Amino acid sequence: MTDTPIREMEDNIDGANKRLEPYPDYLKAELGLRNHWYAALFGHELEEGKCKGEMIMGERILFKRVDGDVYAIADRCPHRGAAFSARPECYTKNTVTCWFHGFTIDVRDGMLVQIVTDPDSRLIGRLKHKTYHVQEINGVVFVFMGDMDPPPPIEQDLQPKFLRPKLAFHPVARNKFRANWRIAAENGFDAAHLYAHRKAGIFDFTDASMPLSSFPKTPDSLEIIDNDEGPWGIVKVDDYTVWTTEIEGETVNAVNLDPDNIPPPDVPQETVVGIYLPCGLEVDWWPAPGVLHFEWFTPIDEDHHMYFICHATEVNSDEEAEAFYKACREEYIPVTWKAATDQAAPMGDGAEWGFNNFDAFGREQIHHVYQYEDFWHQEKLIRPDMTVSKWRMLANKRMRGIQQRQGWARMQGWSPDGQDYDPKKTW
Amino acid sequence: MTDTPIREMEDNIDGANKRLEPYPDYLKAELGLRNHWYAALFGHELEEGKCKGEMIMGERILFKRVDGDVYAIADRCPHRGAAFSARPECYTKNTVTCWFHGFTIDVRDGMLVQIVTDPDSRLIGRLKHKTYHVQEINGVVFVFMGDMDPPPPIEQDLQPKFLRPKLAFHPVARNKFRANWRIAAENGFDAAHLYAHRKAGIFDFTDASMPLSSFPKTPDSLEIIDNDEGPWGIVKVDDYTVWTTEIEGETVNAVNLDPDNIPPPDVPQETVVGIYLPCGLEVDWWPAPGVLHFEWFTPIDEDHHMYFICHATEVNSDEEAEAFYKACREEYIPVTWKAATDQAAPMGDGAEWGFNNFDAFGREQIHHVYQYEDFWHQEKLIRPDMTVSKWRMLANKRMRGIQQRQGWARMQGWSPDGQDYDPKKTW
Amino acid sequence: MTDTPIREMEDNIDGANKRLEPYPDYLKAELGLRNHWYAALFGHELEEGKCKGEMIMGERILFKRVDGDVYAIADRCPHRGAAFSARPECYTKNTVTCWFHGFTIDVRDGMLVQIVTDPDSRLIGRLKHKTYHVQEINGVVFVFMGDMDPPPPIEQDLQPKFLRPKLAFHPVARNKFRANWRIAAENGFDAAHLYAHRKAGIFDFTDASMPLSSFPKTPDSLEIIDNDEGPWGIVKVDDYTVWTTEIEGETVNAVNLDPDNIPPPDVPQETVVGIYLPCGLEVDWWPAPGVLHFEWFTPIDEDHHMYFICHATEVNSDEEAEAFYKACREEYIPVTWKAATDQAAPMGDGAEWGFNNFDAFGREQIHHVYQYEDFWHQEKLIRPDMTVSKWRMLANKRMRGIQQRQGWARMQGWSPDGQDYDPKKTW
Repeated sequence: MTDTPIREMEDNIDGANKRLEPYPDYLKAELGLRNHWYAALFGHELEEGKCKGEMIMGERILFKRVDGDVYAIADRCPHRGAAFSARPECYTKNTVTCWFHGFTIDVRDGMLVQIVTDPDSRLIGRLKHKTYHVQEINGVVFVFMGDMDPPPPIEQDLQPKFLRPKLAFHPVARNKFRANWRIAAENGFDAAHLYAHRKAGIFDFTDASMPLSSFPKTPDSLEIIDNDEGPWGIVKVDDYTVWTTEIEGETVNAVNLDPDNIPPPDVPQETVVGIYLPCGLEVDWWPAPGVLHFEWFTPIDEDHHMYFICHATEVNSDEEAEAFYKACREEYIPVTWKAATDQAAPMGDGAEWGFNNFDAFGREQIHHVYQYEDFWHQEKLIRPDMTVSKWRMLANKRMRGIQQRQGWARMQGWSPDGQDYDPKKTW
Repeated sequence: MTDTPIREMEDNIDGANKRLEPYPDYLKAELGLRNHWYAALFGHELEEGKCKGEMIMGERILFKRVDGDVYAIADRCPHRGAAFSARPECYTKNTVTCWFHGFTIDVRDGMLVQIVTDPDSRLIGRLKHKTYHVQEINGVVFVFMGDMDPPPPIEQDLQPKFLRPKLAFHPVARNKFRANWRIAAENGFDAAHLYAHRKAGIFDFTDASMPLSSFPKTPDSLEIIDNDEGPWGIVKVDDYTVWTTEIEGETVNAVNLDPDNIPPPDVPQETVVGIYLPCGLEVDWWPAPGVLHFEWFTPIDEDHHMYFICHATEVNSDEEAEAFYKACREEYIPVTWKAATDQAAPMGDGAEWGFNNFDAFGREQIHHVYQYEDFWHQEKLIRPDMTVSKWRMLANKRMRGIQQRQGWARMQGWSPDGQDYDPKKTW
Repeated sequence: MTDTPIREMEDNIDGANKRLEPYPDYLKAELGLRNHWYAALFGHELEEGKCKGEMIMGERILFKRVDGDVYAIADRCPHRGAAFSARPECYTKNTVTCWFHGFTIDVRDGMLVQIVTDPDSRLIGRLKHKTYHVQEINGVVFVFMGDMDPPPPIEQDLQPKFLRPKLAFHPVARNKFRANWRIAAENGFDAAHLYAHRKAGIFDFTDASMPLSSFPKTPDSLEIIDNDEGPWGIVKVDDYTVWTTEIEGETVNAVNLDPDNIPPPDVPQETVVGIYLPCGLEVDWWPAPGVLHFEWFTPIDEDHHMYFICHATEVNSDEEAEAFYKACREEYIPVTWKAATDQAAPMGDGAEWGFNNFDAFGREQIHHVYQYEDFWHQEKLIRPDMTVSKWRMLANKRMRGIQQRQGWARMQGWSPDGQDYDPKKTW
């Protein structure tokens, strides 16, 4: 096997971790990359005229759908700070009214259009409340988190195949987990974590094998997409695969491996995985040939992220689209995301566990050491982690900014219902 | 409508909030105003010879009733710091004995009168434990929180009508909520929060209307009681009333309003509301003519307050008193405080919700932004908030001090039963 | 009664607490004494080939039994920080494999022997993971917490009678409580806390009395074991006993005292109690003549400790050992540790409560004031507390170091299962 620059990592076991130097800003971006577009919710979750509150990158945001379009404003009334979403009131389609003292905001432009309890106030028609840019594409509602106005084109922040023509999309899951968004993004693109997936239920009723790991043999097997016009991402083609190894003489095989017919290690895997700023994963294909699998790891706060999954495929007619939706419901989603709840839960074996549930479990497990024990400076990376390392460098280079807490405090220890903040609930 | 000074607030939308300058000490008083009298519990909650622990302004206090009088000492044994109230032991009526090593305190003067495990100790008869001044008036036990000795007369810290002759009193509720005491006090005196009450159960079985808001038209409609002898308070006579308004062409009416018979805006409301230092509300009348309604918002810690409510009326005989008590039980309390539990809970509609439950809900909702996001400097007040603004100024001027943490630590994350601190439980 | 130096404590009621000066390092050792041996678990809890994670002094440790011997490594994979114990995988008896990416450690020496996902990595055979020295004695697994290599002999850190020949041992309980380890150690050796035990169930079905307190009359009644070769400890012989006292004319008697036959105060108690560095208690005898009773108070973190209890007696045959085990199960343990759960719980009266449960209750009660209200500088000690005071001085003198947080962060607010950290669960 050819030597690669990643070998230098390994030769530097005991010294300070030199690999960290290339991405100082990434290490600071615990709340996310500022001035980017983020997946906030699925479009089907927000009916016409309805409101929904979410926390994204530490900011509390109210979404409302008006005449089909989604608008977003700060979910904190300018008067006394109540969250509109705690008890949303909408007298008209364009507005939301605060349940406490009746401040009424036009969600389209943030204008204070009425105060029910003081209709003669001079604030009316003059006070503008914070608004957010929103775009809904392929059933996903994206929000721009930053202060650039106008914001940069959303295409710079999307996985390229997400914008392919003729695609039919089907949402799989949106859940919230206790792990920093970077841990989540790195996990999705991590070339060696296949191992953790080997007990997923899918392998109970398929003969397909899955390698112990599969990663780019050399840096050349990584395509770094780094043009000024964006988007910015990394695509890996796994050309080295580990099918079997041994520990003290005991053989450890890939799941469902036929020991008499072990594939060669240097046949590139068919599945191609890419990750794009700010936090979008693109898998072509998964879990079946022809199916695109997209993920987003939107930061909620320093300790939590939203985990979005959706599937897509190219269709040429309504009938094909319907057939794809049916396959999603009956074949793909059951193996992708199995748990009915939004808990990561300890990994379980067997059929009741979805493939991606293991990812959520893994992220929650290592969040604490990275966030609170500075494991960024202690980790001992290996060759498959070159993918992670390159992603950090690209994110460090192309990020438009680092999100700060600014006027929003951490919700730890508090929540609207008098209980501790639970990120798994809608705000 | 006449212009008022409050207009200046509205004209200052974007600049620094000038209104904060008049009350710097009030902004610091997150634990309460020091050297004032506070409602601690209802007298009926403490039987002869019994003990009860409560936290007030961050201090843990043990109350005991001896020969009808209530005494209070620090609820922290001088020996090894155990809380007497965790397992109160009383061998004699005047004393409490620590369950751990037998330190025995006379609750009347704090003297260490015995140590069961070391009866020859020289500490006996010499060590004095911290005591608190207590007075019980009209069924409410008040405690003096401060170091003035003797304390100032309690009359300076009570709502004047609470001391009227011939009153019969009936407790309504004492509960604990997650909101700073200032948020609670301001909410009680807030002229615009009527709007939040419009879904209370009372309006399901009465034809009475309730305005969208009702507030003093000019500063002259506020009576500021500010003589050196005290008490110090503000009484508002609402002479401007909003019955109806519109949002984008949609009419928003007061609850139970007869659209064909809308009252004029400038008829003063019958109900007169006053607030007095340190944190007492006086409503004349509510919920029925002739009934006085009192509230207190005693600070527990930075994040919690106790919410007391009681009713009173003038009676001239035992029969009249009994009739009043019956009316409280059967008519007034059911509409005032409906929930059986002490949870604020999300606001509900309809008959199962008491009028004042909405207040508790509202306070818990905005606590976080004021306490942790410095909303004191971001709020955009309106004319009805002149009542709040003037209260802050008066409290700032007349407070005898600001409570500090001193020797008591925050209980966050700890409690006697090994679970997290729950302010809703007795200490 | 003779005057003793402890009288000086009592004469210094109001001044600064001079007694603290002799033990400044003890006051800093909130995480435990570094470079000592600690009880970690009972041997019977760890079967051959199995793994178990525990937190000790803020460090997360994985224990595995191999060919009968117990080994321990840091429970944090060197690769990405996952806890091995979250989902232990053992392909061979000498190793543990990380469930996430397959790093495989030989638990005997910490060597990285394989990486399932990158078997060609140069880290293999070169990276050594943190190991801990372990010894299993008399059914208790001890771990050395420090950086001395080789570690000092474990005999220096054990109660001397624990090493007596011919002893048969029986574990009683291992539980986790919310109290700093020093609070726990002091409570075990506290001469006056007998009083708190008087409601234990044992006294419901025995006629035996138990004094209100029993303590060394003079410093001479304390044997201070302080030779350079160790172990270091204090043994007290209680030669002064309080059987009865009165409070305001009311008599307070020891439990089960015959008022017509009160023993003299100056007959030494038969039970001899000793405490040894770092945190081991030795009681000879309890709860029956001839039975040795051992306790350890191993620090978990700043706010929690493990509470170990076991019984032992001298036996000369297998039959005698079996008879002792039967007596433990049927007679001794039921009165020593009654609650089936590991909760301290409020003290209860009567037969359902074990003797030592009251200790756990007491420690949880006073933890907060010592840890967060600096009660170390406020406590008012009495003559029976001379035992505690002398223990603090000896620990201050003989400790080999003070444990620091170093690379391990507090677990507060986090745990592997996504819920808040619960020290009562295995890591």
